[in-house]
Amino acid sequence: MGADHVSSDFIFGTLATDARRLGAMQAELAGIAHRHRIEPIDPIPDQPVRLWVSLGPHIPGDRVTCYFTTDGGEPVGARGVAGDGSQMVAFVRQAVRWETFLWGYLEEWVADIPPQPAGTTVRYRIEAWSSLEDGSSWASEIIGSTPGDGTVLGDESPGDIYLHAMGVEFGLTFVRRARTFAFRVDHEQTPDWLYDGLIYQVFVDRYAPGGGRAFTQPDDLNGFYGGTLAGVIEQIDQIAALGVTLIWLSPIFSSPSHHGYDTTDFYAVEPRLGTLTDLRELLDAAHVRGIRVLLDFTANHVSDQHPAFQAACRDPHSPTYGWFTFTEYPETYISFFGVRSLPQIDTDHPDARQALIDAAAFWLRQGVDGFRLDYNIGPSHAFWVDFRAAMRNIQPEVVLIGEAVETADLLRTYSGRLDGCLDFLLLQALRLFFGFHEIRASQFDSFVCRHLSAFPPGFVLPSFLDNHDMNRFLWIVGGDRRRLKLAALCQYTLPHPPILYYGTEVGLSQRDDVRHADGSGHPEEARLPMLWGAEQDQDLLTFYRRLGTVRRATAALWRGVRQTVYLDDVAGHYAYQCRDGDEIGLVVLNNGPQVGRVPLPAAEWTLAVVSDSVTIEGGAAWLPAYGGVIFTARLPQD
Amino acid sequence: MGADHVSSDFIFGTLATDARRLGAMQAELAGIAHRHRIEPIDPIPDQPVRLWVSLGPHIPGDRVTCYFTTDGGEPVGARGVAGDGSQMVAFVRQAVRWETFLWGYLEEWVADIPPQPAGTTVRYRIEAWSSLEDGSSWASEIIGSTPGDGTVLGDESPGDIYLHAMGVEFGLTFVRRARTFAFRVDHEQTPDWLYDGLIYQVFVDRYAPGGGRAFTQPDDLNGFYGGTLAGVIEQIDQIAALGVTLIWLSPIFSSPSHHGYDTTDFYAVEPRLGTLTDLRELLDAAHVRGIRVLLDFTANHVSDQHPAFQAACRDPHSPTYGWFTFTEYPETYISFFGVRSLPQIDTDHPDARQALIDAAAFWLRQGVDGFRLDYNIGPSHAFWVDFRAAMRNIQPEVVLIGEAVETADLLRTYSGRLDGCLDFLLLQALRLFFGFHEIRASQFDSFVCRHLSAFPPGFVLPSFLDNHDMNRFLWIVGGDRRRLKLAALCQYTLPHPPILYYGTEVGLSQRDDVRHADGSGHPEEARLPMLWGAEQDQDLLTFYRRLGTVRRATAALWRGVRQTVYLDDVAGHYAYQCRDGDEIGLVVLNNGPQVGRVPLPAAEWTLAVVSDSVTIEGGAAWLPAYGGVIFTARLPQD
Repeated sequence: MGADHVSSDFIFGTLATDARRLGAMQAELAGIAHRHRIEPIDPIPDQPVRLWVSLGPHIPGDRVTCYFTTDGGEPVGARGVAGDGSQMVAFVRQAVRWETFLWGYLEEWVADIPPQPAGTTVRYRIEAWSSLEDGSSWASEIIGSTPGDGTVLGDESPGDIYLHAMGVEFGLTFVRRARTFAFRVDHEQTPDWLYDGLIYQVFVDRYAPGGGRAFTQPDDLNGFYGGTLAGVIEQIDQIAALGVTLIWLSPIFSSPSHHGYDTTDFYAVEPRLGTLTDLRELLDAAHVRGIRVLLDFTANHVSDQHPAFQAACRDPHSPTYGWFTFTEYPETYISFFGVRSLPQIDTDHPDARQALIDAAAFWLRQGVDGFRLDYNIGPSHAFWVDFRAAMRNIQPEVVLIGEAVETADLLRTYSGRLDGCLDFLLLQALRLFFGFHEIRASQFDSFVCRHLSAFPPGFVLPSFLDNHDMNRFLWIVGGDRRRLKLAALCQYTLPHPPILYYGTEVGLSQRDDVRHADGSGHPEEARLPMLWGAEQDQDLLTFYRRLGTVRRATAALWRGVRQTVYLDDVAGHYAYQCRDGDEIGLVVLNNGPQVGRVPLPAAEWTLAVVSDSVTIEGGAAWLPAYGGVIFTARLPQD
Repeated sequence: MGADHVSSDFIFGTLATDARRLGAMQAELAGIAHRHRIEPIDPIPDQPVRLWVSLGPHIPGDRVTCYFTTDGGEPVGARGVAGDGSQMVAFVRQAVRWETFLWGYLEEWVADIPPQPAGTTVRYRIEAWSSLEDGSSWASEIIGSTPGDGTVLGDESPGDIYLHAMGVEFGLTFVRRARTFAFRVDHEQTPDWLYDGLIYQVFVDRYAPGGGRAFTQPDDLNGFYGGTLAGVIEQIDQIAALGVTLIWLSPIFSSPSHHGYDTTDFYAVEPRLGTLTDLRELLDAAHVRGIRVLLDFTANHVSDQHPAFQAACRDPHSPTYGWFTFTEYPETYISFFGVRSLPQIDTDHPDARQALIDAAAFWLRQGVDGFRLDYNIGPSHAFWVDFRAAMRNIQPEVVLIGEAVETADLLRTYSGRLDGCLDFLLLQALRLFFGFHEIRASQFDSFVCRHLSAFPPGFVLPSFLDNHDMNRFLWIVGGDRRRLKLAALCQYTLPHPPILYYGTEVGLSQRDDVRHADGSGHPEEARLPMLWGAEQDQDLLTFYRRLGTVRRATAALWRGVRQTVYLDDVAGHYAYQCRDGDEIGLVVLNNGPQVGRVPLPAAEWTLAVVSDSVTIEGGAAWLPAYGGVIFTARLPQD
């Protein structure tokens, strides 16, 4: 197995090749690139905020101005003069740096927005202009180099070529217009309850029909299998037994599809899945067990059957016309990856923004505890600033987790806008090391250490081995439960909250690949119905329950100071310890096909979780092939 | 013309495409990359020096050590223990940053080398290693990711693919071995005399036979035309009349070729060109006129006829065997771009280094004033540190100018090692704007402003429009003297010393391209024999003489504070002024095919140099197509 499946791991599709990465960078840096670079990244009251912006080689501006508002209004201004209700601050040229990939120099400019009181949302735009050329103006954050009139400056740039290619290959459309940025000044922090969380991902249609019903058997995997909210309620104790503190439900709003990411009514529970009353019951059943519930919320797009889009298509004077971006009315409009049935919402349109916020607020008032935010890189950062402020205002403990399949640099910019993002980068490393054996222990360890230090402390990165959009981990390791357990041991002993994808704990796998090398495949293979009763792998289930219990009981495993204690790249041995006060956890992993011996640091170790039989002898652990173990110990008080 | 010739401008060949730039970057950053990053860049006595190094994603070291010497010896050490005579300092992990093009994190580490007294040369090596893996060690500055045993770590990296491709396409060979770096602690600065210099580049074989002789007419352009040092002496007053302060002679050491970049004897004047006595006479004739003389020195390689190489080929026990790098003795060896007749010298070999320094020292003692250093990116930075120290010791006013066809980032690393480098980046911008009309005035201006601010003050970047390795400027503009004059007006009013390539001042051009789009062409077309007598364009000559006089008489033009005062991208109009005290220069250029009007700042302008008839009317200058002018004025004392 292994190498056969590599081509299936098309996780970072739009960034999968050097050419795409380079094109994205060139498109961005050729123009005026703010890239959400503010310092501090999440401002508190009475701190000035420094903004950074770079001017590409073909942006010959000699002035850069920031227009901003503090009352929620749209910032306006031009050529150094702020419009009504807006303030302005001039940028200052700070540095020049060479950029080989644009074969020229970038200028870095900085401006300081003065300190603001708590609760202020600062909305801002950035304009570069030339004092020597009347009418010249370039606005940020346009991708590529585009003057104010919308025409491209100079010849076709590498960035333009890239944007065109992405349109052809991925159906992505890029709009060239000035962007509004925002940050919020407050003392908000990620709620404490998220840090020691353990998340269970339920794909509702595929989890449990409930009421003694069996799954229906639709003709294909895109059909409805009959899972319901009632089914989730029935199984809540099974979920609780895994040590779960948070259930993430796949979308439950009205939708024509089995997955629900194409909403037709943000205010209704999809009748196939249940009722609002069912949801309230589920919330009660969860809360009474100390479990919280996240809904899956898609702000980026809706179903083309959504009344707002239908109205916009029927009448350009419809109040919801402006929610969408028609490039040729009514036939052509911007949609999610070019899928016509998923028209994209302009989340910077004030009415659309408010409608989305109102919808999310409705569910918070029903008692949900937060949202998993689908494709959060689609809506603007400014949107998320308003979104979070509104949510926190209703429920101060609400948690917002984004789904950004992106670089670490972009992920980091969501600090202060969201509470965290799903950790696709760690996912990739976990699969490369434990799933494909494509990187060595030292490389995996090096990645993890660097990755963990690359984000500000309050930004939570839930970990996962797989989800509904990719091959299950058990499938890529050819059904080898030892290897799944080994990867889970590692996942559960990393700092951020683990996500357990439904079915993983009982051995649910696939019958075919989600994506073959030739591009064919069945994405829904990763969403087969849950195994129940005798189909469940009891050994695996026991292991996962034990793992959940130990993680929750052993704070050192997730909040301790991590230290790598053993590495053997040839054999695939890897051990690290995590210390918190006098509590210490030690994780020893054998990611190789041979029995292996790993020396242990001196301590009175207790065996906390073991994936398979492990022998301790002469200060070392003897691990079977693909075996792993978690030890704990108490250090004597100094 | 113009666009037809673009493909000829293959100046940055090894960095000409995105793929090459990306490969170079990946090869470098995948490993341990110091990139000569020290702060301060040119240390003075009693300053600590901070070193920076980055560890690529697949360098899982948790320790980084610097081994250094202050007595000129080779630094040695391993895994944190310095060898005899070496000292060590530990690096500290400073930051982690995401690198999309390696899809992983880089770690930045820093170390401080303690302050040293004046005259100290610090030689150092950098090693990363893992405290968890016995024997693991990665040394800098290896290109790519290579452990200490010379084998490549992990699979073939993007960098390896690039290095292989460069070998196939350019004949470049890369050696994987630990590199020694160096810096010198002193108060050395670039000699003042260089700043207001005006340089004349003489290609000796093609300049003047002297003694009433005519050029010979060899069968092809690779033949000998008969130019001599005596010829240069005869014309010294013509050269002086151009305002020249410095003559750069193409290589004059013994060599079988017309160009001389393949030395066979570093201590002899090539008999075809003259004798040592001729050189001394030339030096005297120049010096008495206030003109200095640079020799062209190639330290990177020699002719395969050079006795040192011949001896090495005959006998592997020869004392000069180690000067070269045989990959398969004696057939295969590293050579300049794979040209077998130009074996490359290992300038880090102590004997080779000393031999090269001794040879240069010999010529300094004859009275030459400095060197133009061919392909200075071939020899190591550590070599140049020793080279400059030795030269300065003999002649404190010596000037050393490198030829690095490279990025601004690499150029900058020669600060404190050389006095400057030929400005290929400006050359490219000058040709794109004035020669090919491929960039606009605002883009050219933006490039110039950023470029000038990108280097430390003491680093001199002589400007040029063309040289012996590329199409002459007059050729690319189809012989249009107006356009040559316009470009020259700009070149001569930029801060760094202009270089005038022999013949340009009298209208010397070509008969064919140096390089056609299909790769064919005649590189020697750019080296046709000098025009003498009636063949000389007297108008152009007068213009160049005037230009030289005005530049030398008007310090504001090169040391004044520059300010762009007018830009019109559509018409191609461009004006800037340069102010130094109460002296002010104003340069007005019309880089377009129409008569143009450019408003002038208010002042009592005097017309200093004009390329063609210019009318002043109503506070504006009326310029003919491709016309330009330099005005000067004295500002009233405040």
